[in-house]
Amino acid sequence: MKIIVDAMGGDNAPQSNVKGAVEAVRDLGVEVTLVGRGDDILSALKVLGCDAPPPGIEIVHASEVVDMEDNPATAFKEKKDSSLTVGLNLVKDGKGDAFVSAGSTGALLSAATLVTKRIRGIRRAALAPQIPTPNGGAILIDCGATAECTPEYLLQFAFMGSYYAEHIMGRPEPRVGLLNIGAEEGKGTDLQREAYALLKKAGEEGRIHFTGNVEARDAMLGAVDVIVCDGYSGNIFLKTMEGTALFLNGKLKAMFKKNLLTKLAAVFVSGGLKDLKKTLDSREVGGTALVGISRPVIKAHGSSDDYAIKNAIAQAAKFAGAGIIESITENIEYMKLPVIRAGAEAEKI
Amino acid sequence: MKIIVDAMGGDNAPQSNVKGAVEAVRDLGVEVTLVGRGDDILSALKVLGCDAPPPGIEIVHASEVVDMEDNPATAFKEKKDSSLTVGLNLVKDGKGDAFVSAGSTGALLSAATLVTKRIRGIRRAALAPQIPTPNGGAILIDCGATAECTPEYLLQFAFMGSYYAEHIMGRPEPRVGLLNIGAEEGKGTDLQREAYALLKKAGEEGRIHFTGNVEARDAMLGAVDVIVCDGYSGNIFLKTMEGTALFLNGKLKAMFKKNLLTKLAAVFVSGGLKDLKKTLDSREVGGTALVGISRPVIKAHGSSDDYAIKNAIAQAAKFAGAGIIESITENIEYMKLPVIRAGAEAEKI
Repeated sequence: MKIIVDAMGGDNAPQSNVKGAVEAVRDLGVEVTLVGRGDDILSALKVLGCDAPPPGIEIVHASEVVDMEDNPATAFKEKKDSSLTVGLNLVKDGKGDAFVSAGSTGALLSAATLVTKRIRGIRRAALAPQIPTPNGGAILIDCGATAECTPEYLLQFAFMGSYYAEHIMGRPEPRVGLLNIGAEEGKGTDLQREAYALLKKAGEEGRIHFTGNVEARDAMLGAVDVIVCDGYSGNIFLKTMEGTALFLNGKLKAMFKKNLLTKLAAVFVSGGLKDLKKTLDSREVGGTALVGISRPVIKAHGSSDDYAIKNAIAQAAKFAGAGIIESITENIEYMKLPVIRAGAEAEKI
Repeated sequence: MKIIVDAMGGDNAPQSNVKGAVEAVRDLGVEVTLVGRGDDILSALKVLGCDAPPPGIEIVHASEVVDMEDNPATAFKEKKDSSLTVGLNLVKDGKGDAFVSAGSTGALLSAATLVTKRIRGIRRAALAPQIPTPNGGAILIDCGATAECTPEYLLQFAFMGSYYAEHIMGRPEPRVGLLNIGAEEGKGTDLQREAYALLKKAGEEGRIHFTGNVEARDAMLGAVDVIVCDGYSGNIFLKTMEGTALFLNGKLKAMFKKNLLTKLAAVFVSGGLKDLKKTLDSREVGGTALVGISRPVIKAHGSSDDYAIKNAIAQAAKFAGAGIIESITENIEYMKLPVIRAGAEAEKI
């Protein structure tokens, strides 16, 4: 298994990316190709005490870096020799099994869609982060790749999220819920009502395990394994979760800092506080899968340190080995609506 | 000031509603008219040690009760002698200054819109809860009254939310943010892009203090005083916040229950834990304002106890005394888009 890693993307690149890659090779039994400015990568290796790339690490030089000032939609074209474009082309050409980047989400999304291409029949790619819940987490699909969706997109997200939850999270029959503002059928906007009908049919045919609408509150409490929604709503969900956790974390910190007794209390519960922090720590999962692309792509958090990069590489390896893209490809006919041609009768759904 | 209270709505009605009303009359210097089954209300008063309605409490008999099995859209018509319909008619006819109900949200929304009517020119009513933030809270408008919105609705929500934040929360120049998936102009769906233009114009004219798009994470951390969104997104925001808080609360409880030392820690921080609980307690605010209706209406939480009902009555009194409806009425021309008539040129916005 060889993972292509964008050495230049992210706030702590290239040092953390290189360190994470070295740790992944050492601990996970994978090979890593680091893509980026050769000199910078070699310097980062030197900091780690390596005068040359250690076994399992390969360097592919790319002279340019896509940064936050670049237009996300066109950066990969304008900077053809960027670590992003070169890295994705390596994966496309079969020189690696998956791609990991901590760079701009928008640029990665455009580049993955246009360089690596979507799976044939998949209308839109989706970002599918794993969110924490009391029962081990759930997949939120989409959380911002496609802000405006059609019912067909949501149907495809449901299938893709279902395969992901099954293969990566080990849920044998993942419960798929449609994010909505009430549990009853008929709730929400036209998008949810039409998507509901499609998901219900797929459920009745036994292709997914659709459990109906799910309210955001119940989704956070673990009611389903896959939360299906448009990218706008999914982003609101994800960012509200993050904001609420930060807000409460601030309150907790202030509470424990109040006086000597409360500081002592913090010592007594330090193990529990560490667990709590770990639950909410995006570094633990590593990154967010970009699903619907013909090759596995993982978006690592922009602020990734070496631990997060290592976990993102682990996730990429799991993604590449799980057969998710194969499952999507094999079942694509069940997640497509007929294209209505002018003058022709609509095909049956 | 006289507040009309639906004595029969909510999980703990009529006992908690009656108790909350008695406490409000005693502590807040308001009068309350309790609407519902006369016998039930008298029995509830008896439990409190009152053989007759105490001074400041009046009872108006209504023989029917709208419950969760009724169709929310038509319940007020089908049950003309319900506490909901009778109560709203009292407010409409000037027999009271505001209406409080802990009954079905959907039924209250329909009834308020069709019995009490919207303010002339307001296209849709909005539910505007106060959410907790590190700097004293923000208004979220809408959170589910109108799932599908037009840009004009969002413009009206911005004005109404702004007046509410100014008059009820004491924010002299409330910062209005458009909930979005990125801070930059042009983010989101067509709805957000078109609403952005309208809000920007209203801001440039000095009618509201529009600060641009706000991401859900920053909104939770207090970046704005008014969070403007469609009812679908607002509901996702509110319910994700509630779910995340419940999830973390569960984790905290487990953490403190682990052993003797952690239980001792809980004692050391008991003051802080109480504050934390209070921050997240919907009972503190009392209820959610239904704005855009021609008379003040407060939706109290379905699970309201007497303390929550009392606070909802306090909030209703504040709403009624604040001149918000007057501000909306006076400025209605600035929050309306031209109606485009067939064959006629569009008026200028």
